[in-house]
Amino acid sequence: MAQDASTWLGVDIGGTNTPFGLMDGAGRLLWQESIPTRRQDRLSELIGRLFDAVDARLATLLPEQRPQAIGIGSPNANALTGRVESPPNVSWGTVDLLGEARRRTNLPLALTNDANAAALGEAAFGAGRGMRHLLVITLGTGLGSGLIVDGKLLHGHSGMAGELGHVIVQPGGRRCGCGRLGCLETLVSAGGVVETAREGLAAGAVSSLREVKELTPKAVTDAAESGDAFAAQVWAETGRVLGRALADSVALLSPQAIVVCGGVARAGRWLFDPLRRQFEESLLPVYLGTVEILPSGLPPDQAGVLGAAEWGRRETLRGAAFEVGR
Amino acid sequence: MAQDASTWLGVDIGGTNTPFGLMDGAGRLLWQESIPTRRQDRLSELIGRLFDAVDARLATLLPEQRPQAIGIGSPNANALTGRVESPPNVSWGTVDLLGEARRRTNLPLALTNDANAAALGEAAFGAGRGMRHLLVITLGTGLGSGLIVDGKLLHGHSGMAGELGHVIVQPGGRRCGCGRLGCLETLVSAGGVVETAREGLAAGAVSSLREVKELTPKAVTDAAESGDAFAAQVWAETGRVLGRALADSVALLSPQAIVVCGGVARAGRWLFDPLRRQFEESLLPVYLGTVEILPSGLPPDQAGVLGAAEWGRRETLRGAAFEVGR
Repeated sequence: MAQDASTWLGVDIGGTNTPFGLMDGAGRLLWQESIPTRRQDRLSELIGRLFDAVDARLATLLPEQRPQAIGIGSPNANALTGRVESPPNVSWGTVDLLGEARRRTNLPLALTNDANAAALGEAAFGAGRGMRHLLVITLGTGLGSGLIVDGKLLHGHSGMAGELGHVIVQPGGRRCGCGRLGCLETLVSAGGVVETAREGLAAGAVSSLREVKELTPKAVTDAAESGDAFAAQVWAETGRVLGRALADSVALLSPQAIVVCGGVARAGRWLFDPLRRQFEESLLPVYLGTVEILPSGLPPDQAGVLGAAEWGRRETLRGAAFEVGR
Repeated sequence: MAQDASTWLGVDIGGTNTPFGLMDGAGRLLWQESIPTRRQDRLSELIGRLFDAVDARLATLLPEQRPQAIGIGSPNANALTGRVESPPNVSWGTVDLLGEARRRTNLPLALTNDANAAALGEAAFGAGRGMRHLLVITLGTGLGSGLIVDGKLLHGHSGMAGELGHVIVQPGGRRCGCGRLGCLETLVSAGGVVETAREGLAAGAVSSLREVKELTPKAVTDAAESGDAFAAQVWAETGRVLGRALADSVALLSPQAIVVCGGVARAGRWLFDPLRRQFEESLLPVYLGTVEILPSGLPPDQAGVLGAAEWGRRETLRGAAFEVGR
């Protein structure tokens, strides 16, 4: 389909770092680098620094190596408006991201949510390769999700489809960054796991986690690996909550697989074993055997960049890049 | 698009009656009739009686009035396999419905789930006309749902997408026909409303419903209309449970509207007012103003027949009718 020499640039704006890289027609990342995001910056400053770095890099390329388009994934981005709408973990407010970027480049641009970009990366090149129906969730600071329906990224009527982190699983439960109570991401995310551990310790649980300097998902995993039953229990509870929520999402979407990515997924079997058990137990019987839960099929931090580049490629092919957000 | 003289036959297999009718290219129902379903019959007997009635009717038509295809909506039908898979309210087991029908007609055939057919009817000709992203739920004996994504009926990987009635809203709650506990349809359906009323009465609620011969959704509505506070409360509780579940489904799909159809929806404002209130209260703020809850836009009993006929039309146009299930 794509010409051999064609390339696309993908940008994955994150809360801490903003990696970008060049993808070839086979979905290989030719190179990748990163700038710090600096949460306190205005978005226009981030865009300025980003394109300084991008331009410097592109200046080293031969003309035929220059990208066909730039795809950008960003927290709370709306693919239909080109705007970023008040992401909870940075201080941007609502900003016309595509407008800002357009002042710095003549290349076609396409924008989507960061979790959607990761989902497209997994669908095109990762664990969901070749699947027409896919749900991808990213467990990090929050719980992001992206849906592939009939081979295409789903944006929905509002442009903001795929917010599984904000289904309510515990009415009246923990306060969420979105302002409501009991969202899935208050239980299943880096902060959610830490809070579950903290609550258990406060309730008197016996655990080596009392001794750790900083309570993190990795510390909980390390403790579980060392035989700490309470730490294993924290992951088991996290997996059960997620398993039930994923089973409910299958009843709507019936995907072929659910890919679970992100830093929190590095807990491995401590998370995946109870997750899969609860998922199968909660699944409507008619779906048993039609859907599986998979870990990411891409190296850490590549899904977002590759997916953003692929989004740029697809929007260019259908003639929509550059128009988006106008 | 469609030629003026072209027609499509739609069949809506239900638990009690099986209406069928002829749709023209403008989505008008030229005529409709019905045969009893008789739950104790084998499916092949129903198909036999259905095509006896269809053939008798088609024999009265001029050749140019004959349908281009037949679309069938049936409980628990799988569009990808052509089979009906153990519907809970009839005694068919798993049956090759398209295979049975093919023995009786040379016309192209297409099959989908009954709730999907109703969803397509509302999307093409009813309350969701012109919308690219739509969720349609049908409140009757159970809670059926169908999804329109990017203008097309969503069947998902298994062929069985859109089972919102079986998301679990009350873990450990009422026993569902699917064998699990606490499914949405145990609370929000004809049986669910009756059970909620019965539980309240058993707990000592003061209500004129103690005097009714048969406790039905209509009896609860009639009592509410007469000023019975308990009856109004039964609807309010039903609306709240449904409002929360619909808000969660928006976080995945972001439809433009959710159409609420079926006999139970005849409760009107007693259901819709608390439903809409809870829905807006539970909605992730980013979706406020992007999605509305609407009643059916079609006469009772037409959505399923029109939607089935439309499904036959679409599958014929894309060359898939008749191949389905092979």
